[in-house]
Amino acid sequence: MKIIIIGASGTIGKHVVKALENNNEIIKIGSKSGDFQVDISNPESIKELFEQTGPFDALISTTGDAHFGPLTSMTDADFRVGLNSKLMGQVNLVLIGQQYINPKGSFTLTSGSLAADPVVYGASVSAINGALDSFVNAAAIELENGVRINAVGPGVVEESPAYFPYFPGHIPVSMHRVAQAYVKSVLGAQTGQAYKVV
Amino acid sequence: MKIIIIGASGTIGKHVVKALENNNEIIKIGSKSGDFQVDISNPESIKELFEQTGPFDALISTTGDAHFGPLTSMTDADFRVGLNSKLMGQVNLVLIGQQYINPKGSFTLTSGSLAADPVVYGASVSAINGALDSFVNAAAIELENGVRINAVGPGVVEESPAYFPYFPGHIPVSMHRVAQAYVKSVLGAQTGQAYKVV
Repeated sequence: MKIIIIGASGTIGKHVVKALENNNEIIKIGSKSGDFQVDISNPESIKELFEQTGPFDALISTTGDAHFGPLTSMTDADFRVGLNSKLMGQVNLVLIGQQYINPKGSFTLTSGSLAADPVVYGASVSAINGALDSFVNAAAIELENGVRINAVGPGVVEESPAYFPYFPGHIPVSMHRVAQAYVKSVLGAQTGQAYKVV
Repeated sequence: MKIIIIGASGTIGKHVVKALENNNEIIKIGSKSGDFQVDISNPESIKELFEQTGPFDALISTTGDAHFGPLTSMTDADFRVGLNSKLMGQVNLVLIGQQYINPKGSFTLTSGSLAADPVVYGASVSAINGALDSFVNAAAIELENGVRINAVGPGVVEESPAYFPYFPGHIPVSMHRVAQAYVKSVLGAQTGQAYKVV
């Protein structure tokens, strides 16, 4: 299976690569590293990426920025960091990628547990994760040729200790559990699901 | 109670006005009608609105545009119609409005049942509704001075028959039931809730 992994060198992405690389052709994508580069906030850059990769069987996105900070001083511009990167970056990977993906292929996006389990400073991240969960739920009923779509929504992960103080009482999730959720999405048959990994 | 209703002359807004006008001071807001006007897609226009209305006890938003159309031809620009209007318009009413709202006040936004119950053509509306539901869930834990926030998520409403063909099997919701959900949010004491009205 030819699998495109966006954010392949990231905290989550590198574990997803390891979990899938033995039996598949992995195309690693980064903003600056990898086999090809993409700026997911730019639809033209996404189109150029797919022109370079050609058709594929699965696309996994483990990337996207968003603003994390207090609601009391949050601005429209703060909020739009995540809209432009984590939300529209991943949505555009699907809107554009649906023209390049092989029949019975799959998209797997990354949302996060804050969609339904908020923490202080997380309001814009929560909104973006909620948007992604609802988007995959809806897009699943329109994608053609048997193409599937799911989202993986991890809690705070064990390899991001800098975030632990902002997630009191949350049990950091093992990278193995997180990576396996992407494997479940790609090698399983479900669609329209938002997998919580907490 | 001084209640600002954005979209006061709309399909839902006019019923919310009726449900609350007997015992409260209602400030009706529209894009072109009402006591004051606002372009919710423009943060400056929102700030000017609150400078005109002054402090308030409750803000209800029943407004916001979004794109409804096939996923197969949906573009970044299509998707951003809803991000700029229904999502950021309502989010900015809160981000800016939190500086003007009285202690123990409330914000009530409008999402919709498509957040979790999608229909064909609704992918961007679903995403925006999901973002709003998660946003109120998260913002509730950061708003200060006892200020509350909820969202009302109606299904297709009985007074919008043009949408019925796109909602097969959905039972159109009575305007009374929808209006009462806003009343519940404003006069009740809950916060962080997304009320589904289906």
